[in-house]
Amino acid sequence: MVLLRQTYNYMQFEQPVSVQWLSEFTGAKLVGDHNQLATGINEIHKVTKGDISFVDFEKYYDKCLNSAATVIIINKEVACPDGKTLLVINDPFSAYVKIVKHFRPFEPATKMISDSAVIGEGTHIQPGVFVGNHVRIGEHCLIHPNVTIYDHCVIGNNVVIHAGVVLGADAFYFKRRKEREVQYDKLVSCGRVIIEDDVEIGAGTTIDKGVSGDTIIGKGTKLDNHIHIGHGAVIGKNCLFAAQVGVGGKAIIEDEVILWGQVGVSKDLTIGKGAVVYAQSGVPASLEGGKIYFGSPVEDAKSKMRELSWIKRIPELWEKLNPPVKDEE
Amino acid sequence: MVLLRQTYNYMQFEQPVSVQWLSEFTGAKLVGDHNQLATGINEIHKVTKGDISFVDFEKYYDKCLNSAATVIIINKEVACPDGKTLLVINDPFSAYVKIVKHFRPFEPATKMISDSAVIGEGTHIQPGVFVGNHVRIGEHCLIHPNVTIYDHCVIGNNVVIHAGVVLGADAFYFKRRKEREVQYDKLVSCGRVIIEDDVEIGAGTTIDKGVSGDTIIGKGTKLDNHIHIGHGAVIGKNCLFAAQVGVGGKAIIEDEVILWGQVGVSKDLTIGKGAVVYAQSGVPASLEGGKIYFGSPVEDAKSKMRELSWIKRIPELWEKLNPPVKDEE
Amino acid sequence: MVLLRQTYNYMQFEQPVSVQWLSEFTGAKLVGDHNQLATGINEIHKVTKGDISFVDFEKYYDKCLNSAATVIIINKEVACPDGKTLLVINDPFSAYVKIVKHFRPFEPATKMISDSAVIGEGTHIQPGVFVGNHVRIGEHCLIHPNVTIYDHCVIGNNVVIHAGVVLGADAFYFKRRKEREVQYDKLVSCGRVIIEDDVEIGAGTTIDKGVSGDTIIGKGTKLDNHIHIGHGAVIGKNCLFAAQVGVGGKAIIEDEVILWGQVGVSKDLTIGKGAVVYAQSGVPASLEGGKIYFGSPVEDAKSKMRELSWIKRIPELWEKLNPPVKDEE
Repeated sequence: MVLLRQTYNYMQFEQPVSVQWLSEFTGAKLVGDHNQLATGINEIHKVTKGDISFVDFEKYYDKCLNSAATVIIINKEVACPDGKTLLVINDPFSAYVKIVKHFRPFEPATKMISDSAVIGEGTHIQPGVFVGNHVRIGEHCLIHPNVTIYDHCVIGNNVVIHAGVVLGADAFYFKRRKEREVQYDKLVSCGRVIIEDDVEIGAGTTIDKGVSGDTIIGKGTKLDNHIHIGHGAVIGKNCLFAAQVGVGGKAIIEDEVILWGQVGVSKDLTIGKGAVVYAQSGVPASLEGGKIYFGSPVEDAKSKMRELSWIKRIPELWEKLNPPVKDEE
Repeated sequence: MVLLRQTYNYMQFEQPVSVQWLSEFTGAKLVGDHNQLATGINEIHKVTKGDISFVDFEKYYDKCLNSAATVIIINKEVACPDGKTLLVINDPFSAYVKIVKHFRPFEPATKMISDSAVIGEGTHIQPGVFVGNHVRIGEHCLIHPNVTIYDHCVIGNNVVIHAGVVLGADAFYFKRRKEREVQYDKLVSCGRVIIEDDVEIGAGTTIDKGVSGDTIIGKGTKLDNHIHIGHGAVIGKNCLFAAQVGVGGKAIIEDEVILWGQVGVSKDLTIGKGAVVYAQSGVPASLEGGKIYFGSPVEDAKSKMRELSWIKRIPELWEKLNPPVKDEE
Repeated sequence: MVLLRQTYNYMQFEQPVSVQWLSEFTGAKLVGDHNQLATGINEIHKVTKGDISFVDFEKYYDKCLNSAATVIIINKEVACPDGKTLLVINDPFSAYVKIVKHFRPFEPATKMISDSAVIGEGTHIQPGVFVGNHVRIGEHCLIHPNVTIYDHCVIGNNVVIHAGVVLGADAFYFKRRKEREVQYDKLVSCGRVIIEDDVEIGAGTTIDKGVSGDTIIGKGTKLDNHIHIGHGAVIGKNCLFAAQVGVGGKAIIEDEVILWGQVGVSKDLTIGKGAVVYAQSGVPASLEGGKIYFGSPVEDAKSKMRELSWIKRIPELWEKLNPPVKDEE
C-alpha cells in the first residue's frame, strides 16, 4: 500500500456538489459564482481549490476569503472574491456541521470487523479488536486484543498496535455558545487517522481523527503507552514518544523528534526536526529543531538547568544583603 | 430520563434495616435507640437522616456523632446523642465493609450486555461494549466499541462515550494497617457513576464510582481522552477538561470550569465556577471561581508568569551584588 | 500458587541449547568453549550462569564479559574469559533478536481465553477479557471486562484487575540505526509480567513485559487508574500509586513506597523503602527510602517548599538593591 502525502486530505465528495444544492440544503444565501462545484470539505489551514470552508469570526474573514477555498460559508454578506462562492448564513458553524453529517453519516456497526474493511496479507488481528467501516489495514501488521479502529482509518504495512489502543475517535473541538443551556456545540469531524508503515503504538494510546483533514503518524515512528495525539496532528517519521505524552490538535512534529515521558505539547505549533524534549516538560509554542529542551514552560535544557541552580542561590544572595547579625531562614 | 440531584445519594436499602439485625450481623454492641431503622449507607460528608456511617479515628468522633447519620459504627463506647444508635465494635471499617458486601454483592456477568440494563430509545451501542447489571442509559446516546460500564451506572440522554472508556470502577480507597502482611485494606464501594445529559467522554477516560455516594458528571460537560475522575467527584455543568487531566476523589468542580491538558487536581477540594487552569498545573487546595490559574502548585496565572520572569533576573541581582571584577556564572 | 522471587527470571529454554547450534543459527563465529550449553536468555543487569547475553558497545564490553553470562554475543573478537563462549558477529542485536523470535515465537490467538491458560478456583473473569497463551491466574481473582492479558503473564491469588487494563505488552525498547530509513530497530522482548497476591490494578493501567526478565508487582500493592509501568520494573510489596503515575523500564521501587498522582519515574533507578513522592513530581535518579519528596526534578519535600517561598522573595531582594526612587516591578 502506497500512502502519498498529497492524497491525505480526505474529505472529498464522491462526486462534486453544486453550490445551488448546498444553498438549498443549508438555507444559506448564495453570493458570487452560482455555478461553482464543491469537491470536498477542509480546514482553513490546509484548504485547496474546490474545498468548502467556513468562517464565523470577523477577524478571520480575510484569511478565509483569501484562502484557496472555493466555497465559503460566512455569517455576513461581504464582497465575494472572483471565482469563489459565498454561502451567507447566520450560523456558518451549524451549516457546516449539517453538511458534514450529510456526507459522512455515522454508520452503526453490527460486528467487530466490518465487511467493508480491507485487511492486507500477513496481517494478524487478535480477538476483541473492532475494525470499523471503510478501514484499510496494510500487510504484516499485528493488532493486539481490544483495540478499536474507528471508520475510515488507514494503516500501513508492518504496523504493530498494542492492546486497548483507540484510533479515530472524534476531534475534541467545540464552539462555545454561552447563551445556551448546553454551551459546547460539537464540530462533527470528518477527517481520518493515517498510520504509516513500520509504526508501533503502545498499549492504551489514543489518536483522534482530524476535524476534516487527517491525523498522521509518520513512517517508523514509535509511540509508547497512554499517549494522546489530538485531532489533525501530523507526526513525522522516526519519532520516539515515551509513555503518557500528550500532543494537542493540529500540532506538527517533524521527523526524528524525541519526547520523553509525560511531556505535554500544546495545539497549533511546530516542533522542528530532531528536537528532544525532556520528561514532564510543557511545550506552549513552536520549538526549533535540533535542540534539547526542558521545563514547563519549556526552555533550552541547559539554560533551564542553570536557572534551577540559580534558584538554589537565592538564600546566599539574601545573606549577602542581610549580613547575619540576626539569622533569618 | 430525569436525573434529580436530590436523588443522587444512592446506596439506599430496598427496605429499612433494623439496628438489631445490624448488631447481630456485625457483632457490634448496640448503644442508644434499639428500635431505629437504617435506610441507607453514606459517607460522613454527605450523610442524611436514616443513613449508616462509620468512624474509627477519635478526632472525627464529634463530626460523625453530630452529623445527620442515624446509625454510627464506632470503635469506642461514647455517649450516644438523642435519636441515634451506636454500633460499638473494635473494627468499624470491617463491619462497614461487611454490610456493604451484604447489600451490594458482586454480581458476575455472563454476557456483554446485562438483561437488567435499561437502554433508551435511539441509543446505539457499538460492538464490544460491556453494560453491567442495573445500568440505565438514556435516549439518543452513542457508546463506541470496547467501553466498560460497571453495574449500577446511570447515563442520561444524548451522551457520547468514546472507545475504551471505563465507568464505575471501584473507588481507590484503602485503610492502611501497618501491622498486617497485606497492609492496604479495601473500602468496598457501593456508590455509582452518574453521567448527565449531553456529556461527551473521550477515548480511554475512566470515571470511578463513589465510595457510597455518586460520582457525577454534570450536564453538557465535555471530557477529552485519558482523563481520570476519582471516586465521588462531582463535576458541574458545561465544564471542559482537556486530555490527561486527573481529578482526585470527592473533588467538587463547579460549572463552566476549564482544565487544560495534564492538569492534576487533588482530592477533597472545590474549584469555583468558571475557573480556568492552564496545562500541567497542579491544584492542591480549593480555588476561587472566575479566575485563571497556572503552576504546580497552582497560583494566579499572572502572578505565576511574573514569578517566572523574576527567576530569570536572579543572575542580574547577583551581578549587582558582585560587580564583575571576577566573572561568575 | 507460590511465586518464588528466585524463579522469576523466566526466559529459560525448555532444554539446554548448544553453542554450536547457536553459532550456526545466527552465523556467528564461535570463540572460547565450544561445548557450552546455554539455558536461557537474560539482560546484563541480572544474568546468571547459563544465560545468553549480548553486547554491542565497546564501553560495555568489560561489564558483559565479567558478568555471570555464559554465552556472550559480541561484535568484536576479544579475549574470551575462562568458562565462557563468545558468539562473534557484526550485529549482536539482530542475532539476539533472531534467537528470541525462534524460542518465543508469537502465537496468534483464536479466542478470548486461551486453552493453555490455567485459571484458579474461585477466580471470576468478566466478559470481553483476553487471556493469552500460557497465562497462569491464581485463585479468587476478579478480572473486570475488556482487560487484555498477553501470553505468559503470571497472576497470583486475590488479585483484582479493573476494566481496560493491559498486562504484558511489548517492552518499549529500540536500537537506533540512523543510517536506515526506518531508524528504530525493535528489541523483541521475551520477559513476562508477574502480579503477586493481593494486588489491585486500576482501570486502564498498562504494565509492559520485561525485555527478557520479568516486570513484577509485589504482594499487596495497589495501583490506581491510567498507570504505566515500564518493562522489567520491579515494584515492591504494599506500595500505593495514585492515578496517572508513570514508571520507566527497569526501575526498582522498594516496599511501601507511595507515589501520588501523575508522578513520573525515570528508568534504571531505585526508590528506597517507604519513600513518599508528592503529586506531579519527576524522579530522574535514585531516591533514599523513608523520606518525602517533591518537585520536578524531585528534591526533599521540605527543601523544595522552602525554595518555593524563597522564589517569592526575589522582588524583595530586588527592592533592597534598588531602593524605590523609581519603582520597578
